[in-house]
Order: sequence, then structure tokens, then C-alpha cells
Amino acid sequence: MKKVNLKEKMGLIKEHWSPKIAGELNDSYIKLAKIKGEFIWHHHDQEDELFFVVKGKLIIRLKNQDVHLKEGEFFIIPKGVEHLPVAEEEVEIMMIEPKTTVNTGDVKNDKTMEELDWI
Amino acid sequence: MKKVNLKEKMGLIKEHWSPKIAGELNDSYIKLAKIKGEFIWHHHDQEDELFFVVKGKLIIRLKNQDVHLKEGEFFIIPKGVEHLPVAEEEVEIMMIEPKTTVNTGDVKNDKTMEELDWI
Repeated sequence: MKKVNLKEKMGLIKEHWSPKIAGELNDSYIKLAKIKGEFIWHHHDQEDELFFVVKGKLIIRLKNQDVHLKEGEFFIIPKGVEHLPVAEEEVEIMMIEPKTTVNTGDVKNDKTMEELDWI
Repeated sequence: MKKVNLKEKMGLIKEHWSPKIAGELNDSYIKLAKIKGEFIWHHHDQEDELFFVVKGKLIIRLKNQDVHLKEGEFFIIPKGVEHLPVAEEEVEIMMIEPKTTVNTGDVKNDKTMEELDWI
């Protein structure tokens, strides 16, 4: 039972696209990440996923629209919805999603992180 | 599927201690509230609860410590743990908790909100 300061934790993250666990809440994890560039199109069969922008600007591409998020904004991607996170510059994000969620969803490739560390 | 801007939504909240639903995510709601003053001691038998400070300063009293939270900090109260939120000045908070969570937990009184509106 310790509080989490987002800025402090973000300062500890050195790699892009490598989410860290900052809290657990019922069946979900709170994850923090720094991202830059384009991820991959994917979806999560069973899990809704929340993206909250801590710093910077994030684009979430969906098949029928682009969602532009800035600091202090969140967006929830319902299960089954194809999405592609894009960060033109580095973005700090907080994600909330079930513990079962794999970052690349239905896709397995070199970006897939099977096990995450706590931060 | 709409993004949520925390500042904009907070601007729509006029009453203290009256959480509004700003999103749903798996079995949980994202709730926004403005609070000021002292709530009541309570716990939630089945639900972990996350408090994130959007603006201002929040104290969460526990039986053995006070947790001081400022903007950009969160704290997770595990199920079963007695707690008392205190806001000396107005605080804007985001909460994440299962849909089954009642604000006053095991206590039923005039602060209890059985049904919440979306914002």
C-alpha cells in the first residue's frame, strides 16, 4: 500500500514500448509506459483497455477514425476493436486493463511482452 | 467510444461528494468527483478502489497512517481496508472501482449514492 507518483515513476522508465506495472486493482493492472513511433494493429478479444495520456500527444488509430489524445485525456478501447497507437513524439501513458491482457493482443511478434516487471 | 477530457468533465460537476460515471472498462467504472471536507470511515468488502488526484490535495486516512496525495498521484485501497477521504480544500478526483462499489461501502447513510449518473 504505497502511493504512486506518475512523474516519479515515468522518470524510471528508459525504454519505449516496455510497459511496467505500477499497481493492481481487482483483476486489473495499472501500467505505465513511454512510447514513441508506431505500434502494430491489434485487438484484445476479451479485454477493454484504457489509455490515459500523462504527457505528450497520442493518436489511437481505429479502422474508422483517428482519436487524438493529449495530457489529461483518456480513451477506452472496447474488447474486439482493432487499434493502432501512434506517438509522433515520445508520449507518457497510463494504461488500465485486465491482468490477462497481452500488449500486442491477437498478434505475436517481437514487440510482444509476455511478462512485465513492476516499477 | 468518445475520449474523455478530465478538465472539461470536471467543469460540469457542481456538487461535492456526487461522483459521476465517465467511462466503463470491463467490470469497472471510471468515476469523477469533486470533494471537499471529510467523508465517513468505511470499507468495501469486495472491491479494491483507486483514487487519482486530478487537482488539489487529498488525504486518505487509514487506521495506521495518513496518505497525502497531490495532483498526478494515485493510491489503491485494497478491499476490506477502512479508509476516510479528507479534502481540506476542494479536490478533483478520478476513481476506478468495480461497478458494484457503493461510495459509502459498508455504511448506509445520507451520503450513500445508490445510482450514479453519467457525465
